[in-house]
Amino acid sequence: MHTDPDYSAAYVVINTDSNVKGFGLTFTLGKGTDIVVCAVKALSGLVIGKSLQDIVGDFRGFYRLLSSDSQMRWLGPEKGVIHLATAAVLNAVWDLWARAEGKPLWKLLVDMDPKQIVSCIDFRYITDALTEEEALDILIKAQEGKRHREEQMLKQGYPAYTTSCAWLGYPDEQLKQLCRDALQSGWTKYKVKVGADLQDDIRRCRLIRDMIGPRNSLMIDANQRWDVSEAISWVSKLAEFRPLWIEEPTSPDDILGHAAISKALAPLGIGVATGEQCHNRVMFKQFLQASALQFVQIDSCRLGSVNENLAVMLMAHKFKVPVCPHAGGVGLCELVQHLILFDYICVSADLSNRMCEYVDHLHEHFTCPVLIENAHYMPPKSPGYSCEMVESSVLKHQYPDGEAWKTKIA
Amino acid sequence: MHTDPDYSAAYVVINTDSNVKGFGLTFTLGKGTDIVVCAVKALSGLVIGKSLQDIVGDFRGFYRLLSSDSQMRWLGPEKGVIHLATAAVLNAVWDLWARAEGKPLWKLLVDMDPKQIVSCIDFRYITDALTEEEALDILIKAQEGKRHREEQMLKQGYPAYTTSCAWLGYPDEQLKQLCRDALQSGWTKYKVKVGADLQDDIRRCRLIRDMIGPRNSLMIDANQRWDVSEAISWVSKLAEFRPLWIEEPTSPDDILGHAAISKALAPLGIGVATGEQCHNRVMFKQFLQASALQFVQIDSCRLGSVNENLAVMLMAHKFKVPVCPHAGGVGLCELVQHLILFDYICVSADLSNRMCEYVDHLHEHFTCPVLIENAHYMPPKSPGYSCEMVESSVLKHQYPDGEAWKTKIA
Repeated sequence: MHTDPDYSAAYVVINTDSNVKGFGLTFTLGKGTDIVVCAVKALSGLVIGKSLQDIVGDFRGFYRLLSSDSQMRWLGPEKGVIHLATAAVLNAVWDLWARAEGKPLWKLLVDMDPKQIVSCIDFRYITDALTEEEALDILIKAQEGKRHREEQMLKQGYPAYTTSCAWLGYPDEQLKQLCRDALQSGWTKYKVKVGADLQDDIRRCRLIRDMIGPRNSLMIDANQRWDVSEAISWVSKLAEFRPLWIEEPTSPDDILGHAAISKALAPLGIGVATGEQCHNRVMFKQFLQASALQFVQIDSCRLGSVNENLAVMLMAHKFKVPVCPHAGGVGLCELVQHLILFDYICVSADLSNRMCEYVDHLHEHFTCPVLIENAHYMPPKSPGYSCEMVESSVLKHQYPDGEAWKTKIA
Repeated sequence: MHTDPDYSAAYVVINTDSNVKGFGLTFTLGKGTDIVVCAVKALSGLVIGKSLQDIVGDFRGFYRLLSSDSQMRWLGPEKGVIHLATAAVLNAVWDLWARAEGKPLWKLLVDMDPKQIVSCIDFRYITDALTEEEALDILIKAQEGKRHREEQMLKQGYPAYTTSCAWLGYPDEQLKQLCRDALQSGWTKYKVKVGADLQDDIRRCRLIRDMIGPRNSLMIDANQRWDVSEAISWVSKLAEFRPLWIEEPTSPDDILGHAAISKALAPLGIGVATGEQCHNRVMFKQFLQASALQFVQIDSCRLGSVNENLAVMLMAHKFKVPVCPHAGGVGLCELVQHLILFDYICVSADLSNRMCEYVDHLHEHFTCPVLIENAHYMPPKSPGYSCEMVESSVLKHQYPDGEAWKTKIA
C-alpha cells in the first residue's frame, strides 16, 4: 500500500523565554507533510504565550483545548491531519517538560504520582471501558516492584524486534545475509512483509523460519492489503510458518473485520496486531472491547502524544492485551521507547509476548539516537523525549529551501 | 460541542479547455479551512491535465488514485482533512460531468446504467457486507417503477425536516413563533438540539411537542456530547416526548457505543441516528453490521463525494436502514438533495421514515439554491451539482482578501 515512501516529518520547535526548548515531530510518508505543517500552524495559536506550568498544571484541559477546538474539531475530531498535528505539538510540549525537569521522558513519567498521570488523560468517550478510578487503581497496584523493574530496564533494556530483514521481493541471498547478521547481533524476533504475492510470501517466510529456527519469533505484516475473507484465506496459507501475529490484515478502521479475522485465525495460533494507523483512543477501546486484536501497536505520532497513549496502555492492561509499539520511519523508535519503558515499569510489569519494533534507519539525524544492545532498547539518559534533530540535518532536509530539496528540484 | 461555528467552505473550481467548468466544495466550521485548501492543492496534481473522459471512464480507479495515493494515505486513510479535500475535488468533478451532459446530477445518476453506477464505487474493505454483484442486483431490481418515482419526485419533491426551530437556549416566545411559522409553511418534522442542560432540553422538547401535536415527528440531536451511559440515561428522561431518533449521542467513531445505546433505547421506541462525522464507508459498514444506528445520515462533503455515498446508500438498503441525509451549513442542502433523489428513485423506492434535513441558511450564495415547497425538496433542474457560488459572494468572502475579511481583520 505504501509502495514508495519518502520518509518525512513535520518538526515542531517550541521556543521559551528561558534557555529550554521543546522539540516534537510527527512522521509522514512524504507528500502531504506541508498539510500537516499547515495544521500545526493553525494549532500554534493555542500554545504560544502560555507558560509550561499553565499547560502541565491542567494537561487534560490543554489536551482537550487542542483536540476539541470547537471549530477545528470538524476536521477530525481526533483523526487524520489535525490529530497528527496535535501529536507533533504535544510531543514538543512533553519534550519541553522533561527537559525542564532534567529527565528523560520515561523517567519523568515513572516518577510521577499516579494521580498526576491520570490528570493528563482525557477520559471522554472511553468511560464505558475505563474510568478514571480504574486507571488510578491500575497505576497504584503497579507501584509494587516499580524500582526493581526500573533497575532491570537500565541494565537489560526493553526487548525489540527487527523489521529490517524481510521486505517484499528481497532475493534469497539478501534475506540470508540480513538474517545471518541479525542472528549474530542477538535478534530473536523477526517481521516479514506479506500480501503482494502469495508465492513470494511463502518463499520468504519459509527461508526466514529456516534461518531463525523454531524457537525464535516470526511476525507477518500485510499493511492493509486485504478485505476480510481474503485476509483469512491468505494468512491460513502461511500458518505452517507459525507467525505470532498478522499485522494490519485489512482497513485500520475495520474493528469488526479485525474481530472476524481474529476469530478465524485463533485456532491456528495466529494473533492479530494493529495500531499504527488506529487514529485515537475511541478506536482502540473498541478493538479491545470486540477482541479484535491480540497485540496493541501504539504509535507515538498517530495518537495524541503521551496523553492519549497513556489511556490506550491502561485500557490494554485492563483487557489483558500486550502493547507492542509501532516504530521505524523517522524518529518513531526514538519517541516510543519512552512509552514502552513506562508501560513495563508502571503499568504491565510483564514482558511475555511483548516487544518494541525496531528499524535501523535514519537515527543519525537525531541528537540522542536510540541505543540498541543485544536486541534491546537501552533506556535513554538525556533529558527530553529524544526527538531533537541534528541541526545540519534540519538545514539540509528542510522543505523547500534545504540543499537536499534544491538538488532534487534542480 | 460546536459552540461558535463560522460556517465556511473550501471551494474548488475546475477549469477546462472547453466552456464548461466544475464547481465543488467541502463545508467547514471556520478555523482550519486553510488546512483543507492546502490538502486540495496537494490533490490537484492528480487531476490537472486529465480529460473528463479519462476520469469518468474509470471512476473507481480515479477515486482510488485520490483516496489511496501511496504517500498521502498516511494522512488518513480516507478520513479527516485529506478526505474532506477529496470530497471537495470529486464534488467538482461530478459537477463538471453533469454539466457536460447537460443534466442535474441526480438525473445523470438516474439515467446511468446499473453497471456504470457500480463502476464508480470502490468496494475495497466492504465486500464482507456488500459485493459488487449484490450492489448490481439491488440496482437492477429497483429499475422497476423508476420512471414513476421520478415523475412523483418532480411533482411532489422529497420530504424534508427542519432544524431551524429549536436550537439550545432559545426562549419560549422565540420557539413558539418559529414553530407557528413552520407549521404554517407545511413542516411536519422538527429537530431539537439537546445535551447542554437537561432541564432546558425538557422545557424545549415539551413546548415543541405541544406545538406540533402528537402526529408530527420530533427528533433530538446531541452533537456528540455524552459518553455511552450518560447518553442512555439522559435520552431516557426525554422519552416522554417521543423522539423518533437521538442523533450523535456520543463519539462519531464509537460504533460499539452506538450499538449499546441503540439496544438500550429500542424498548423506548427511540432510534439512533448518526453520520455527519462518520468518515468513510468502512465505518458506515460497521455501524450497519453492529445494528448501531437506525437512521443513516450521509453527508455530501464528509464522505468521498458521490462515489462513496453510492456505496453507503446501497449498504443501507441491504441492511434495511433508511437514509436521512445531513444538511445545513454551507451548500450541504444544495448537494445532498441530488443524492437522496437518486436513493429514492433508484435504490430504496421507499419514503417511510425517510426525510432530508433542511436549514434555511446561506442559500443566497448559490447560483441554483434549493427550492423548498410545502416542506419538500423540489428536484433541481439546472445542469450540475448545485454548488456553484454567486461570484459576488466569492469575491466578498474569499479568505483573506475578500471585503468581509478585510473589515473583520481591521
